[in-house]
Amino acid sequence: MPLLVVGSVAIDNVQTPDARRDNLLGGSATHFSYAASFFTEVQLVGVVGEDFPREHIELLRRRGIDTSGLEVVPDGRTFRWTGRYEPNMNDRESLDTQLNVFGQFNPVLSEEFRRAPFAFLANGVPTVQMKVLAQVPGCRLVVADTMELWIETTHADVMKLLERIDGLVINDSEAKMLAGTENLVSAGHLVRRMGPKFVVIKKGEHGAMFFSEHETYVLPAFPTPRVIDPTGAGDCFAGGMMGYLAQEDNFDPETLKTAMAYGILVASFNVEGFGLERMLEITNRDIEDRMHEYRKMLSF
Amino acid sequence: MPLLVVGSVAIDNVQTPDARRDNLLGGSATHFSYAASFFTEVQLVGVVGEDFPREHIELLRRRGIDTSGLEVVPDGRTFRWTGRYEPNMNDRESLDTQLNVFGQFNPVLSEEFRRAPFAFLANGVPTVQMKVLAQVPGCRLVVADTMELWIETTHADVMKLLERIDGLVINDSEAKMLAGTENLVSAGHLVRRMGPKFVVIKKGEHGAMFFSEHETYVLPAFPTPRVIDPTGAGDCFAGGMMGYLAQEDNFDPETLKTAMAYGILVASFNVEGFGLERMLEITNRDIEDRMHEYRKMLSF
Repeated sequence: MPLLVVGSVAIDNVQTPDARRDNLLGGSATHFSYAASFFTEVQLVGVVGEDFPREHIELLRRRGIDTSGLEVVPDGRTFRWTGRYEPNMNDRESLDTQLNVFGQFNPVLSEEFRRAPFAFLANGVPTVQMKVLAQVPGCRLVVADTMELWIETTHADVMKLLERIDGLVINDSEAKMLAGTENLVSAGHLVRRMGPKFVVIKKGEHGAMFFSEHETYVLPAFPTPRVIDPTGAGDCFAGGMMGYLAQEDNFDPETLKTAMAYGILVASFNVEGFGLERMLEITNRDIEDRMHEYRKMLSF
Repeated sequence: MPLLVVGSVAIDNVQTPDARRDNLLGGSATHFSYAASFFTEVQLVGVVGEDFPREHIELLRRRGIDTSGLEVVPDGRTFRWTGRYEPNMNDRESLDTQLNVFGQFNPVLSEEFRRAPFAFLANGVPTVQMKVLAQVPGCRLVVADTMELWIETTHADVMKLLERIDGLVINDSEAKMLAGTENLVSAGHLVRRMGPKFVVIKKGEHGAMFFSEHETYVLPAFPTPRVIDPTGAGDCFAGGMMGYLAQEDNFDPETLKTAMAYGILVASFNVEGFGLERMLEITNRDIEDRMHEYRKMLSF
C-alpha cells in the first residue's frame, strides 16, 4: 500500500568524537522514506532549494520513492543543520540550524497523494501537520512525530494534533515532557490518553516501548557495536515500522509489534554509517538476516 | 544446588521524590539471597553488629537461607547507608555511608560452604573477594560484582579478580569505566577479554546485556509502572539469575539466557516497594506469571 510522508529534506553537517562529515543528505522525511522503501511504495512530500543536488533526488527515485511531491523552490536554499554528538553518541548539540525554504513549508498534496491509506507526519510545526491531516480524510492510519520545541512553544496545537492522529512516535525525553513524569511507562500511558490509539517511545540505544489500551511492551535495540552516526535513526525507525505496516496493509496488534521490530532493525543499520551511507549498502536480505538474529536473541 | 553469596548486610535509609523510609533491611548479600531463595538453597556469608534486629535474620531463615555464615560482632554496629534518589529514580546520591563492622569484613567459610558449587562475590573490596575465591577452589561457577570505587582506587586488584572469575555482573557506568569506552556493546566485549567467560551489564530500567565469546544479546527490563525504590534491584537481578542457574545445576548458553530473564523479572518486583517489602509479598507463582507475560512480550 502507498505510504505518504510529509517532512523535512535537508543537508546535514555532522561532527562525532571521531570524525566530521559535511553536506550529507539528511532530513526526517528523507531518512523515513529510504527506510520505508525496503517495504512499500513511498510518496514523499517536502521542499528543497535550488542548491539541492540533483543526485540526491535521483538516489531516492532509484529506491522507487515518488518524489513528485518534493517541491524545488527557485532561488531558494535547502534546510541545513549542523550538529555535534557527545562521546556517548546519544546526546547532541545543534550548532547551526538554517530552516531556509523549510521555514515556509506549506504542503499541498496531489490528488493521488490525498488517497494514501497510510501516512506519517514527520516532525514539524503542528499546525502544518494538521493542514496535511485535513488533506487525507480517508487515510486509515495517520502517525505523527513531534519534538520538544513544539511541546514547549505550541502546546495547545500539539494537544489538538494528538486528538486527531492514530499513533504518535516520539523519543523518551519528549514523552517525559508531554506527560510531566520521569517514569516512561507512566508517560506512555498518559500520552496515549491524550488522544492517539497507540504511542511508541523511542529510547535510542535502549530500544522502543509500545503503549495501547490493552498492550504495553518493550523491545530492545539490536546491539550493534558500530555506532558511527545516530542522525536520522529515529526517522528510520518510524520508516521501517510504517513501511512494514503499509506492506502488510494491516495494523493489528501482532503486525504492529513485528513492524516495531523492523523499525528497530532498520535504525540499527542506519547508525552504522554517516547519513544514509550504511543504508545504501544494505538489501532486504540483510534486514531479514538481522531479523533472524534478533528473534533468536529474544527467544529462550 | 547450594549457592554461596558473600557480601554486605546493611540497614538502609532511603529517600525518594515521594517518600522517605528508614531502617530498611538492605545490603547486597541480603537482596541477592532473598531473590535467589525463590530458586535454590542459599548460603549467606556476611557480618552485622549487635544492633542488627533479630527479626531480619528470622526473615531470611524462613526463606530457607542458611544464615550460619552471618557473623554477629558483639558491641559492633551494622553497615548503614542513607541515599536519595533523583526524580528519574535512576541516579542517586549517597548521603551517608557508615561501613562499621563491614569495614573489617574478613570472611572465613565453613567446611560446608567451601564446597558450594555456585558462588557470587557481591560488591566489596577486591582483595576480600579474592580471599573468598581462594576458599572455594572446587566451585564450578564463580560470578562477581564490583563498583566504580574499586575500579578507580584498586584497579590492579580488580584486574586480578577478573582473571580468576567465570562471570562478571556490573552496571553500565562501571562497564564504561572499566573498558574506557562509551559504547556499551564494545565495553562488554572489552571487559570480557580481561578474563571472565561472560559479562553481564545491568542497565537498570533498560534491561541487561550479555557477552560471551560467541554470544551478544540484550533483554529489556519488564515495564512495571510502579517504581517505588530501586535499591537492591541489581543484587536481586544477580540473585534471580544465579539462583536459577544453581536450581538448574547448569550454565550452558540457553540456561544462562533464561537465568538472565529470571533476574530481570525478580528485579522488576523488587523496585515495586521499599527495601524488600514487595519481595515479601510475591511467590514463585507471581514470578512465573510475569515470565509468561515477558515471553509473550518478546515474541512476534
